[in-house]
Parts: sequence; C-alpha cells; structure tokens
Amino acid sequence: MRAVTCTKGELEVAEVPDSTPERGHVVLEVRACGICGSDLHARHHCDDLAEDVAASGYDAFMRSDQSVVMGHEFCGEVVDHGPRTPRRLRPGTLAVSLPMVRRGGHVHPTGLSVHAPGGYAERVLAQEALTLPVPNGLPAAVAALTEPMAVALHAVRRGGVGKRQVAYVIGCGPVGLGVVAMLKATGVRTVVAADFSPARRALATTLGADVVVDPAEGSPYAVLADRFVTGQGLLDLAVRTTERLRSVPLLPWWNVFRAADAAGLGPSAPVVFECVGVPGMINQVITSAPVWSRVVVVGVCMESDRIRPSIGINKEIDLRFVLGYTPDEFRAALHLLADGTVDPSPLVTGTVGLDGVEVAFEALGDPERHAKILVDPASTAVAP
Amino acid sequence: MRAVTCTKGELEVAEVPDSTPERGHVVLEVRACGICGSDLHARHHCDDLAEDVAASGYDAFMRSDQSVVMGHEFCGEVVDHGPRTPRRLRPGTLAVSLPMVRRGGHVHPTGLSVHAPGGYAERVLAQEALTLPVPNGLPAAVAALTEPMAVALHAVRRGGVGKRQVAYVIGCGPVGLGVVAMLKATGVRTVVAADFSPARRALATTLGADVVVDPAEGSPYAVLADRFVTGQGLLDLAVRTTERLRSVPLLPWWNVFRAADAAGLGPSAPVVFECVGVPGMINQVITSAPVWSRVVVVGVCMESDRIRPSIGINKEIDLRFVLGYTPDEFRAALHLLADGTVDPSPLVTGTVGLDGVEVAFEALGDPERHAKILVDPASTAVAP
Repeated sequence: MRAVTCTKGELEVAEVPDSTPERGHVVLEVRACGICGSDLHARHHCDDLAEDVAASGYDAFMRSDQSVVMGHEFCGEVVDHGPRTPRRLRPGTLAVSLPMVRRGGHVHPTGLSVHAPGGYAERVLAQEALTLPVPNGLPAAVAALTEPMAVALHAVRRGGVGKRQVAYVIGCGPVGLGVVAMLKATGVRTVVAADFSPARRALATTLGADVVVDPAEGSPYAVLADRFVTGQGLLDLAVRTTERLRSVPLLPWWNVFRAADAAGLGPSAPVVFECVGVPGMINQVITSAPVWSRVVVVGVCMESDRIRPSIGINKEIDLRFVLGYTPDEFRAALHLLADGTVDPSPLVTGTVGLDGVEVAFEALGDPERHAKILVDPASTAVAP
Repeated sequence: MRAVTCTKGELEVAEVPDSTPERGHVVLEVRACGICGSDLHARHHCDDLAEDVAASGYDAFMRSDQSVVMGHEFCGEVVDHGPRTPRRLRPGTLAVSLPMVRRGGHVHPTGLSVHAPGGYAERVLAQEALTLPVPNGLPAAVAALTEPMAVALHAVRRGGVGKRQVAYVIGCGPVGLGVVAMLKATGVRTVVAADFSPARRALATTLGADVVVDPAEGSPYAVLADRFVTGQGLLDLAVRTTERLRSVPLLPWWNVFRAADAAGLGPSAPVVFECVGVPGMINQVITSAPVWSRVVVVGVCMESDRIRPSIGINKEIDLRFVLGYTPDEFRAALHLLADGTVDPSPLVTGTVGLDGVEVAFEALGDPERHAKILVDPASTAVAP
C-alpha cells in the first residue's frame, strides 16, 4: 500500500507492505487522518522524545533511524479483521480508534512506533476492542478530530473548572482551541483565550471563547482581574474578618474564601490551561496568574525548562500535567462531535493527499493560514 | 527590651524599644521561640525573598539594610493589650499566635518584617484575634512547635493522602519530620521517609515513619515499587482488560484503575512530599516517582530551578505547591499537640538564650546534631 514514511526526518511517499492483522486487530481503510503538532516535533526530535518516554517508564518509541509511518488521528472504514477476532464491527463501518495496538505481546502507540504504522497510509491496523463505530452519519473529516478533541476533554476534566470559575486558555493551537470548545460544552461561563495570532483569536471566538486577548497588548489575567484576590488583599481581609467576628475565636477564613470560591460568591481563583508548550511558559503562567490558580499543563514542552518554585509556593499554585485521555473520554468526545454539541470543523483549514503531507507539515508552521490539516489518502491534493 | 536583631546578615543582641500595642494587639512575654530554616535563609538572602514575595502580590518583606527582629514560632505569656482590644485573653495566659499583625492599616508577617518584630526578643506583639490560649498544660517548649507543625498539617491536607496510599517524605528536616508525624496522626498506613542523615532517619522513625531510606543506598521509590503500575504495564493491562470484557464496547479502564486506586485495591499512585527545597529536587522527584504521583512541594527552593515538563506530562504528575496554613489548621495543630496525638518534642535538640542565637544558627547546619533549637529569652545558655 502507499504510505508516508519518516526516516531521519525525511518524509517520503513509498510503497510499504500492509501490516498483517493478528488476533484482536481490525484493518481500517483510512478516510481522514489529522496531522498533529507532535508529529511535526517527532519528525525531527523523536530521539529526544524516545528518551523522555523511556524515562517515564514506557517501552520503545520511534527512533530517527527507523522508517516509521506516522498519523494517530485517523478515521477509516473497516475492511478486515485478524484471525479469532470478535468482529464486533462489520466491514464498511466507519470507525475511529484509540491509537494503540498490541503486537508481539506488547502495546505500541500507533503512528509513533515502528511496530504500529499509523494513518498517513491507505490502511491502518487498530485494536478492535479500542475501536468505535462513528455514529449519526458524522463525516470522516470531523470524526478524525475525535482524538485531539479527546485530549482537550481530558485536559478540561483534569482542570475541574467550576461553572462560575474563570478559565484562561493560553495558546490557541488546535489543542488550545479544542480546550475552548470543550470548556464551553461543559458549561463554563467565562472562557478567556489568548494568542498572538489574529487568525487564531478569531477561531477561538468561533469555538466559543467569551473574551480573546492579544498577549502583546497586555496580560490575559488583567481581564477580569477584579474577580481575584491578591496575596496582600487576602491577609488584610483575613485579619479584618477575624476581628469583626470576634465571637468566633479563630475563623478559618481561608476556608471561608475557598468555600465562597467554590460557590462562585467570592474572590475566585481561575483555572489556566497552558497550551503553548515552549520553554518559559510554565514560569510565565506561575508568575502572572492570580493566587491559588490551578494550572493545567497541556502544551508539551520537550526541552528542559526553568521555573521559580518560590513563586509557586507563595501563590499555592496547583500544577497538573496531563497526557492523552481515558477511553471513556475518547468515546465522550466522539459523541459530543456526533450529536453536534461541539463542532470542531472550523479547525480544519485544509486537506491533502499522501503526496501533500510534506507540504502540509511545512504549512502548519504559519498560524495565520492553518490550524488542522487532514490527510485523505484518496485525495490528489498536493497542497492544503 | 533585649532582642536579637539581624542587620546586613549580622545577628546581634541589642536593647530595642518595646513595640507599642495598638487596637487589637496583645503583648506576649516570650517563653520559647523556635528557629526556623527560613530564618537561616532570610538572614543572608532576604532581598531575594523580598523580590519573590513582591512578585507574588504581597507587600513589603524584610530587607538586608533594615534592622529586623526575626522569630515567628513563638509561645508566650499575655502581659498587655492595646487600647480598645477585646481582652479575650487574661494576663498570665500562655498563648501562641499566627505570626501576623496589622499596624498602620497593613498586615505584616511577624518576624519577617521591620514593621512586625518577632520572637527572638523578651516580648512580641500579636493580633489578639489570631492568638490562642495553650490548652491542657502543654509546656511552652512544645507549644512553640505549633507553627511548624501547622505547616506540616497543611501540607498533609493539601496532599489528600488516602489511608491506604503510600506517602513518601523526601527530606527529614523539621518540616519533613512534622509531615511524617502528621501523616501518621491522620491515619496514613505507610509512610516512607528518606534522608541522607542517620540522625534524621532515626528521628523519622521516632515520629512514626514505617520505613526509612538512605537515598545514597537506592531510590526511595524502590521501596514498595511492586505496589505501583508502570506506564507500559498500564497500557498492557489496559488492552488485556478491555479485550477480556469484550461485552463492554469500551471499558474506561483508566478510571477503573483510579477507582481501584482510591479504594486501595489496585495499582496505587503515591503522594510524595518534597521537603528538601534545593534546586533539582522537584525534577528528581518527577523523574523517579511512579506514574500519577501527587507531589506536594513543601521545601522552599529559593533559586530558579530546572524541570523536564515532558516527564511530568508522560506521568500525569500533580504538583501542589504549599504555603503556611489556615487558622483552623494552626488551631488543629495546637490541639493535636495538647492532647498528645502528636508529640513533636523529639525534634527539639537544644535551647539557648538570646545570647546563643547566633551559635544556634550555625549549629543548625549540622543535621547529625540538631533539628529544632528553641530560644528562651530567660535562659542564659549561649550554645545549644
């Protein structure tokens, strides 16, 4: 079959052998596969990634000297099964799958391992138990966004944003935009999105952001700053409150504030989604965000990074790193797309065939022109 | 009155004017005041601290060119009140207080501000509303430990350790040892404490640690490592479980694990208390701790620090920075000491008079000899 291989950072359309489905596998004929920012990174830096993954206790990841078919945001039609597989999904069914397959007794990340070729190809292997039929006639070009939208949903869930809490989304790449959409889908009232790119800010508005901010023109946290207490304001208010209620020997005022916070009645700490992932961003958020902010680190900063822990301590920051999604979040994302609650289709700014993948990788460097580009192996487009 | 002043890093016993109590103030005659690690740091680096505090949104902190009386872990006898103060506490009452006073309309940190002289003195001002009588005949030398033990209790609460979760305490300085004691007091079954110092490990055992580890001899997380799942183990188990239960189209196995985790039934993520506070420690914990670890950052690293966010992401680490305590935690700590649930007295390795404070500061550099040294202004001891 035809596929795009990545070898030593070079993308090339090549004829590669089809993977042989084993027990538990299903073969999908790819209808659409999104290009993920992590593919752009893995193309040139997969050896660094492999080291981090190994340091985190996972097995082998793609290496630059291997020839790997990338693509893990795929949607395709069921065309075959491995032997002794339950065959829950009939041939012809349009389906999406968590990008993981077991081969040789090990689970591999599809599209990021030489043992599990991905969706920049005519066909891709999936684990039938992790594969879901696409409901409600959702087009493949939208269903292919299930994976990045599941990433966004997982980040939102880990953020645990109260409906009356303010959410700041820093960075409006595809994942940041997905976070905006999922925050609104889960009922968060006030979502402030920040990005230097006017095109990305416009997309954030389309996806539901209530306020958009150009960080070049001022801190995102200046928006609604009067909703938040400062450290010193807290101490002053605390002593004043304790003295006023002097029948209570010692009022747990911090807890009062936290309770008021949860009820949306008082000075409220926001939840900040860091979706940029370049060195310095985590520290910038810690330094600029209000006291007690919860910071969800969604953007993947691959380099070593500097922080000032003492600022995190003085503000009692919660830093929650997030990875991927749970299977139920993947399923929930698919259904939110299928029932129309979330419409991520404005994210798609172009489609190419396999011959256009390399051009598409380059084009994604310009945030003014592109957000998400899909690969459709049946297309002949060589540029998005 | 006599007091120890700190000016440009020099400690000196001097005659200083008594602070005049204002409305809402109480004057305590100091019976005991603990020397805190942050005082050792502030002595030489308070200008850096002041910058961090300002960057975090708090007002003025002590500066090296000021003459400041430090000491914020004090216990003393009520001897006077400011005008129009409720006088809840009768003269002669032994009391402890949250170290904060309001003067000139601003709240200042007692012992860390030129506007609020601390407890290395014959007398100290406190805010009556934040002052608690010492119950149950608890000696002043133990009651003075209320403040650091409240820090430990707050860290433990923020850690939210389930009774069947494993807690690792990295670093057995006074706060780390306090965390050990408070973990046991709140019913945590398994507490593993790590420190290079044999004396500190012995103290950790005395305070209730179930296992002590010398990090020079191996990773603390190797202890009980079989209780935790690895990233790869998780993926393998996940696919296996999903296939076995194939009547369920898509089992939320990550959630199943989390639920099992909470119930103490399955692979369980630990809570790690980082109580060292030197550069590199946060990254070392992120790199060495199991998947899903919650890391409570208690040790105050004052310098800029390096982390690898990608490892945090791959493991979905929760990093919770903590500061101080709430008033109810301060009160709870006092009562846990007074009713004997927690006995921190083994921490006290020496007592000095005001003339011994400088020697005591130096002596605290040796973890084999000292943990917590108290200052008793009535004592004539010049060395601990």
